[in-house]
Amino acid sequence: MQSLHIVSSYDDELKQLSKHIAAMGGHAERMIEQAIAALVASDTDLARKVIEADLALDQGQREVDDKAILLIGKRQPMASDLREVIGVIRISADLERVGDLAKNIAKRVASVGDNLQLASLYRGLEAFAHLALTQLKEVLDVYASRSVETISFVRDRDDQIDAMYTSLFRELLTYMMENPRNISPCTHLLFCAKNIERIGDHATNIAETIYYITTGEQLPTERPKSDKTDQIVISAQ
Amino acid sequence: MQSLHIVSSYDDELKQLSKHIAAMGGHAERMIEQAIAALVASDTDLARKVIEADLALDQGQREVDDKAILLIGKRQPMASDLREVIGVIRISADLERVGDLAKNIAKRVASVGDNLQLASLYRGLEAFAHLALTQLKEVLDVYASRSVETISFVRDRDDQIDAMYTSLFRELLTYMMENPRNISPCTHLLFCAKNIERIGDHATNIAETIYYITTGEQLPTERPKSDKTDQIVISAQ
Repeated sequence: MQSLHIVSSYDDELKQLSKHIAAMGGHAERMIEQAIAALVASDTDLARKVIEADLALDQGQREVDDKAILLIGKRQPMASDLREVIGVIRISADLERVGDLAKNIAKRVASVGDNLQLASLYRGLEAFAHLALTQLKEVLDVYASRSVETISFVRDRDDQIDAMYTSLFRELLTYMMENPRNISPCTHLLFCAKNIERIGDHATNIAETIYYITTGEQLPTERPKSDKTDQIVISAQ
Repeated sequence: MQSLHIVSSYDDELKQLSKHIAAMGGHAERMIEQAIAALVASDTDLARKVIEADLALDQGQREVDDKAILLIGKRQPMASDLREVIGVIRISADLERVGDLAKNIAKRVASVGDNLQLASLYRGLEAFAHLALTQLKEVLDVYASRSVETISFVRDRDDQIDAMYTSLFRELLTYMMENPRNISPCTHLLFCAKNIERIGDHATNIAETIYYITTGEQLPTERPKSDKTDQIVISAQ
């Protein structure tokens, strides 16, 4: 009975950690939604709420880390159990970074300002954020359900995210060239777009971690990258 | 004798992991140096070398991770020994990201092009990269020597890095406003500057990990951040 008790209690602790990750994931998702809503509506009050909300995610990561390390020390898990705990440490680090990126978008709301000329860009950014958010949500669903066999959707959406980022990047550069008044707000929007692209990257990292937890193997080294914005050159007339 | 043998062998394995981290650190430092040299000289051959060099860092991280997790499973370390191994996993992830950032600078070399008008910006970026590189080198020295009592230099240099990033950010925006031909290359230089700032952030992360390894405590949640570029608005005349 004793050993049964220990086993079930270990599973309980692991389940607690998974719940903690789910809560962090939900928190990060809300931060992204609200940061984009604040940007589109130029709502600095909402932006401030997002900035404040990041603290909870930082603390969440520290708690998860502390608990995970205590659990390793106390229970001495092996093989797949150990991978689960290491996975929790990795995923919480990715979610903490996602929160930082959403916070950074919120911090740029005031600098972008209320610029009606840029309305079509906002719609593009909103759609882009929606795509990255869907990537994150579905990856976290895979984590919750451990349905790792469905994980191939991640690569396809990675490609969509990269294509949309490239097109937004080009659009932002042309706006900047059309009117020097756009340079300052569009620079901040460039960084917002980059942040959204990186949120997609973190979602992919989490997918890779889930793959590792479940199979014990790591995905091949270099993920196929179609982000080519580093090679975009647009000449001014 | 058996237990003595196991202990010494555990220490050996840990020492091997530390050496692996030192090698990854040296590799990442060289990548940063060469990426900046390639940017300043518009040397696309050197840039290509940096891009290729990143693969070794990705593989290095995977090896370190695999070895660290095997070590935890095999040796079941407790307390400070466990923290050492978790620390190795974290530091190798930071160094892998530093390599990605150096690679991203190298990938922008061709897009920035050979633009004599921007020569003073290059000097600024070079000095900025030197500062971030010094931060990384000294943090890795602290890791090698475990002289954690000297770690307070990190915060001061963080402030210098943020101040220099802010000033480069402003300078880049004014170049873009002066001449629309500068918009495309300067956008890439903006991202190069951001990458260098993030290399400094990763150095700080590593410092925090070293603090954690040594003391078992985590540094206070929010590091004092003086990067205010997200609030820079420069109006066009």
